[in-house]
Amino acid sequence: MTVHVGVIGVGMIGQDHIRRLTTVLAGSQVVAVTDVDADRARQVAESLPEPARTHETGQEVIGDDGVDGVIVTSWGPTHEEYVVAALEAGKPVFCEKPLATTQEACSRIIDAEVALGRRLVQVGYMRRYDPAYQAMKVVVDSGDIGAPLLVHSRHRNPSVPEYYTREMAITDTAVHDFDTVRWLLGEEFVAATVLSPRRSRHGGELQDPLLILLETESGTLVDVETSVNIRYGYDIRGEVVGEDGTVSLADSNPVVVRRDGAFSGRVPGDWRERFLRAYDIELQAWVDAVASGAGATGPSSWDGYAAAVVSDAAVEALRSGSRTELSMRAKPDLYAKEQ
Amino acid sequence: MTVHVGVIGVGMIGQDHIRRLTTVLAGSQVVAVTDVDADRARQVAESLPEPARTHETGQEVIGDDGVDGVIVTSWGPTHEEYVVAALEAGKPVFCEKPLATTQEACSRIIDAEVALGRRLVQVGYMRRYDPAYQAMKVVVDSGDIGAPLLVHSRHRNPSVPEYYTREMAITDTAVHDFDTVRWLLGEEFVAATVLSPRRSRHGGELQDPLLILLETESGTLVDVETSVNIRYGYDIRGEVVGEDGTVSLADSNPVVVRRDGAFSGRVPGDWRERFLRAYDIELQAWVDAVASGAGATGPSSWDGYAAAVVSDAAVEALRSGSRTELSMRAKPDLYAKEQ
Amino acid sequence: MTVHVGVIGVGMIGQDHIRRLTTVLAGSQVVAVTDVDADRARQVAESLPEPARTHETGQEVIGDDGVDGVIVTSWGPTHEEYVVAALEAGKPVFCEKPLATTQEACSRIIDAEVALGRRLVQVGYMRRYDPAYQAMKVVVDSGDIGAPLLVHSRHRNPSVPEYYTREMAITDTAVHDFDTVRWLLGEEFVAATVLSPRRSRHGGELQDPLLILLETESGTLVDVETSVNIRYGYDIRGEVVGEDGTVSLADSNPVVVRRDGAFSGRVPGDWRERFLRAYDIELQAWVDAVASGAGATGPSSWDGYAAAVVSDAAVEALRSGSRTELSMRAKPDLYAKEQ
Amino acid sequence: MTVHVGVIGVGMIGQDHIRRLTTVLAGSQVVAVTDVDADRARQVAESLPEPARTHETGQEVIGDDGVDGVIVTSWGPTHEEYVVAALEAGKPVFCEKPLATTQEACSRIIDAEVALGRRLVQVGYMRRYDPAYQAMKVVVDSGDIGAPLLVHSRHRNPSVPEYYTREMAITDTAVHDFDTVRWLLGEEFVAATVLSPRRSRHGGELQDPLLILLETESGTLVDVETSVNIRYGYDIRGEVVGEDGTVSLADSNPVVVRRDGAFSGRVPGDWRERFLRAYDIELQAWVDAVASGAGATGPSSWDGYAAAVVSDAAVEALRSGSRTELSMRAKPDLYAKEQ
Repeated sequence: MTVHVGVIGVGMIGQDHIRRLTTVLAGSQVVAVTDVDADRARQVAESLPEPARTHETGQEVIGDDGVDGVIVTSWGPTHEEYVVAALEAGKPVFCEKPLATTQEACSRIIDAEVALGRRLVQVGYMRRYDPAYQAMKVVVDSGDIGAPLLVHSRHRNPSVPEYYTREMAITDTAVHDFDTVRWLLGEEFVAATVLSPRRSRHGGELQDPLLILLETESGTLVDVETSVNIRYGYDIRGEVVGEDGTVSLADSNPVVVRRDGAFSGRVPGDWRERFLRAYDIELQAWVDAVASGAGATGPSSWDGYAAAVVSDAAVEALRSGSRTELSMRAKPDLYAKEQ
Repeated sequence: MTVHVGVIGVGMIGQDHIRRLTTVLAGSQVVAVTDVDADRARQVAESLPEPARTHETGQEVIGDDGVDGVIVTSWGPTHEEYVVAALEAGKPVFCEKPLATTQEACSRIIDAEVALGRRLVQVGYMRRYDPAYQAMKVVVDSGDIGAPLLVHSRHRNPSVPEYYTREMAITDTAVHDFDTVRWLLGEEFVAATVLSPRRSRHGGELQDPLLILLETESGTLVDVETSVNIRYGYDIRGEVVGEDGTVSLADSNPVVVRRDGAFSGRVPGDWRERFLRAYDIELQAWVDAVASGAGATGPSSWDGYAAAVVSDAAVEALRSGSRTELSMRAKPDLYAKEQ
Repeated sequence: MTVHVGVIGVGMIGQDHIRRLTTVLAGSQVVAVTDVDADRARQVAESLPEPARTHETGQEVIGDDGVDGVIVTSWGPTHEEYVVAALEAGKPVFCEKPLATTQEACSRIIDAEVALGRRLVQVGYMRRYDPAYQAMKVVVDSGDIGAPLLVHSRHRNPSVPEYYTREMAITDTAVHDFDTVRWLLGEEFVAATVLSPRRSRHGGELQDPLLILLETESGTLVDVETSVNIRYGYDIRGEVVGEDGTVSLADSNPVVVRRDGAFSGRVPGDWRERFLRAYDIELQAWVDAVASGAGATGPSSWDGYAAAVVSDAAVEALRSGSRTELSMRAKPDLYAKEQ
Repeated sequence: MTVHVGVIGVGMIGQDHIRRLTTVLAGSQVVAVTDVDADRARQVAESLPEPARTHETGQEVIGDDGVDGVIVTSWGPTHEEYVVAALEAGKPVFCEKPLATTQEACSRIIDAEVALGRRLVQVGYMRRYDPAYQAMKVVVDSGDIGAPLLVHSRHRNPSVPEYYTREMAITDTAVHDFDTVRWLLGEEFVAATVLSPRRSRHGGELQDPLLILLETESGTLVDVETSVNIRYGYDIRGEVVGEDGTVSLADSNPVVVRRDGAFSGRVPGDWRERFLRAYDIELQAWVDAVASGAGATGPSSWDGYAAAVVSDAAVEALRSGSRTELSMRAKPDLYAKEQ
C-alpha cells in the first residue's frame, strides 16, 4: 500500500521531507500540498514526478479524502491548529518540532489525542533514530553500565544566524538534547539550572556557550553544553555515566587520513550531514506506521509537551540565574508505554 | 516515474533485493518474478503489497512489456544468458556478482553491450557504494596523499560454510577487494601471486588465511589478506599508501563502551551488518539510473570481466605457487570513462 | 654533581620516592631518613645500596650538613613544620600534597618563602608532568583553539577505601583537577558549587559521584566529575573547550585487541599505572633544579595555598548546597611568573 | 652500587647514551671514553659533571680497571673487535646495532661468548623495550588471539639522507622489524622475498617503498613495508593476526585536537620522538643487569647474528628478485631460553 501524504508548509524543511519521500524512502507519494506562499506551493506541487494537488489552506489538505497522512512543516505558531485538525479528522500526522510554541498548546494537543483514544502524532525529534544514539540506548537498557548517574551532552554548532537569540540556545538547540536524554533514561526532568560562562568572541553579544544542568526524577544529573559558534564543525557528543561503566558516542568519521604530521578524521560540517540518516529513518518509520495502520510511533505528543515544559523551565532559569523546578501535568495512560 | 522491476531468481539474495525495493528504497515496484522453483516464485510474488506476475522463465520476465528493468539473482551459470537477453531486449539489468562464471562469458556480454552501443548492465559490487570506501576514494582522487604506491586490504570473516573451497577465498571473497582496489586506483592489474601461510586451526583442511599480491599497470602493489575463519567478527580494513600520506578505513562502531578495565567498540558480525547501507545505496542508484533513462552506471560489464580475469589469474597463482601475469582484451571505448 | 637527599616520612609514598631516586632517576642519592616509626626508618635506610643515616626527627634530617634537599612525605599535619624548617635552613624541599592541611598554614609557608626571597618549595602535583597534560597545555597556550571558555574534567577511580569520606572527593581527589586546571588556564578560581547526583550503589552511604563547578577570574566554567567507585578502571579524562576548537586527553592504551566481536584497549587499573611517568618526571625535575641551584620549579607554595583555598570553598559548597565565593590573599611577586 | 661505564665511540649516538646515563638513568657513571677523533673524546670527557678519563683506543677503555661495563657506539666495522675484546676481558658490553657488519663476524662473537660460558653482550634493538611492543607481546603470549598466522609491519620515515641506498632499507630500516617480529613470535625466519612497487617521487633513484615478505619456521607470514620518504611522519605500525583475533599498535598521540573541520592527533616526527622511552628503558636494563652481576639480558649475540642472516638473505632477495632461503648455524644452548 502506498501512503498518500499531504504536506502543510513547503519551506526548506517541508521541501526536504518531500524530496525524501519522493526520492529516498519507500512506500509513499506526496499528493497534496499547501503553503502561505501559494506560488511556492504550486511550484513544489508541479515539480513532483506526479504533480500533487495544491490547496489553499492546511485544513483543506487535512480534509482531502486522498490524503492518508499529514506532514506539518509550517511556521511553529500554526502547528497546534493543524495537528488538532488532523486528530479531529483521525489522520496520522508528522509534526516537525516544536509540537507547539507553548506548553499550554502542547497540552491541548494531548487532550485532543487522549479524547481520540489512540496515538496519531509523531513529533520530529529525529535523534532518536540516529544509529549511534540507538546503539547508546541499547547499552543503557542492557544494564551493562549499571544505573545511569550522570549524562554529559555536547551540542556544538559552527555558527548560528544573526537572528539567533540566547533563548534559542535552549528552545532550538538544547531541546534536542533534552528529548534525547529523556528517551535514553526513560524518565522526566524535575529541575533546570543554566550557567553562563565567559562568552565566545564569535558570538558577539550572544551568551554563548551555555552549560545547562538538569535533574531527573531519580536524581540523575545531566549537563548540556551548547557552543553554537565554535567554528570547527557540527559536533554532537555524549556520554552516559553509570555505576559500572560508561557509554559514549564515537567519532563518526569513515576514514582516517595520515598527512602533514597528523592523523585525522572529519567532523561533520552541519546537522544535515550529521543526522542525514536519522531524518531518513525517522520519516520511513512514520510512513511505515501509517501504512500498517499503527497510527503513530516514536516521539509522541507527550514528548513534545515535555520538551516545551523543560525548555520553559530552562529559559526561566537562564533569565533568573536560579535553579528552576519543573511542573508537569499527570501523564495520560495513552503514553504510558512510550519511551 | 515508478520503475517496474522483474526479478530472475528469488533465493536469499533475490528476496533481499525485493524487500529492499519494496520497503526501503524509493521509486520502484516489483511486478514480475521467476525462479527454478516455481512454488517459491509464486509465494514471493503473492507476498508483495501488490502481487507480482509469475513467469516460467527468465526470458519471459525480460520479455514482459510491463518490466522496465531486470534484476538477475539466479544461479551464477545462468547469468550470461539472462544478461545477454536483457541487452537484446534493450532493458537495463542489475546482475549480482559474478557477472558470469568465466571470463569468456563475461567477454561475450561485453560484445553484446558494445554492439548495442550503450551501457545497460550494472554489476553488484556494492562496496563502491559504501560510505567509507566512497570517502576513501575522495581522498585518493584529491591528490592529498600523492600517487598511490601500496594498498593493504584485509578481508576477514568469522567463519565460512563447509562447502567453501580454497579457491573461493579468491573467487568469492577477495574478488570484492579486487574490484574495490581497481575502482580506487582507476587502473588494471597485470599480475598476481598467492602466498599460503600457516593454517588456522579453525579452517580444518582449508588453506586459510591467504595473502594475495597484485601488481597494477603503474606498479602499485596490492596485498589482500583473506582470513575467513577468524571468529572475532567481519572486519574489512584497508589502507592506501601514497607518496605523501595514507588513507585508511576507520572503525565503524557508533559507540564506545567503558567497562571491565577496557574501552571497546563493536566489530560487525557479518557482511549484512557491515554493508547494509552499501546494498541500499547501490540498488537505489540502479533504480534512479533506470528511471532517468541513463541505462546503467556504477560497476560495468567491463568491471565484471576484469574481476573474472583477475580471479582466474589468482586461482592459477594459488595452484602453481608462482607469479602469474594477466592478459586482458582491449578495453572498448564504451567503458572508457568509467571508474 | 650528585644531589644528597634527606627523606622525612618513609611510609608507602616516601618509600616509593626513595625507590625512584635510587633505581629510576639520575643524579641523586638518599643519605638520610627519618620516620615516626624508628624501626621502619632503620629498615629503609639499611636496604639502600649505600645505607643512609637514620635521624630521630625531621628537624635533624633538615639540619644534616650532608643533605642538599629534603623530601617531605610525612603525615599531612606535620608538613608545615618541616617545610618551614627547610626554608629556614635554606634547603630545597619537595613536599607531597597537601602543602599543609589548612590554608592558613599554607599562607605561613608563603610568608616564610617570601621572607627568604626565593623559591625553595616544590609541591607534589605530579599531573603537570604527565606527557598528555603537557601536550594539552601546549595546545591551549598555542592559541590554536582560541580562548578557553569551558573545561570538562573527569576523575574516575575504580574504588576507594572504607575511610574515604564525601569531603575527600574534593580534598583528596578533585584537588588534582583543581591544580591541573589552574595551571592549564593560568588563572585563579573565584567560586565553587557542588552538585550531588543520584548515588552509586557501590559507594554505600557515600555521596558518589559529585559534579563540582568552578568559575575562574575570566569566567571560564569548569566542571569536574568525581566518580570514585566506578569499577571499570582509573580513568582521567579532560577537554578544554575554546572559541575555535577543543583539546582532549586521548585514550592512553598502547595496543588495540580485536577479539570476541569487539576491538578494545585497556583502561589503567589505578593511579600508579596512569601517572607512573608523571611521578618520575616530577621528581627528576626536582633533583635537576636542586643540582643546578635553581632552588625550585614546578608547583609552588602559592599553588599549594590555592589548592587549599579552592578545596575549602568546595567543601563549604558541598555542605551548604550553595555557590561559594573564594577569597585569596594577594599573590606575592615571588610567584608572579609561575604557571 | 654505581656502574662505571666506558664508552667507545662518542659520535652522535655515543653522546646520546652518555647524556642518558648522566642525566636520565639511575645507577651509573661514565668514567672512560675514547674516539677516533681524540679531540672529540676529550671534549666529551671534560663536559661531564665528573670528568671521565680519555683513552687512545677502545682496547684501553676495555682494559681500564675502573670500567665495569662497556658501551660500543663506534663505527660498525669496529664492533666485532671491541665486543670480542670485552668478552675476553669478562666485561659486560652494550653494542649498538649492528652487532657486526657480517654474519661471519657475528658468528665469531657467538663463539667467543659461548667459550666464555655466559652472556655478556646486549645488542641495541631498543624496540623490544618500547611499552607498546611490550604490551603487544603480552597479548601474543597470552594466547588470547590464538596462534599467530600473519604479521603486518609498517616502517615509515619522513625522509632519509642522500647516502641512503636501497639495501639500507633492509639493513638499516627493516632490520628493526626483523628483530621485533622474531622476538614477538619466538621463532626464526626461513626465507625472504622482496617486492619493489612503483617508486615514490620523493626518493629520486631510490627503490622506495619496498614490501619484504618473510616466512618463519612454523609458516607464519610476515610482510614489512618500508616507506622511507613518506613525508607525513615517523610512523611505526604493526598487527599480529592470530587464529582468533589480532593485536595492533595503537596511535601514540597523547591528545586529540578538534579544529578546522577535523579531529586529529600527532604522528611522531622522527625515531627519537617515537622511541625515546624505549632507549631509556633499554639502557637502564643494561645498567641494572651489570649492577646485579647478571651480565646481560635482552637482545643477545644470537639476535645480532640472526638479524645479520635475515638481512643478508633479504638483500640477496632484493637483488635477485627471487625467494631466498636462509641458513643459520645451530643455536648454542647459551641462548636457548632467550626470547
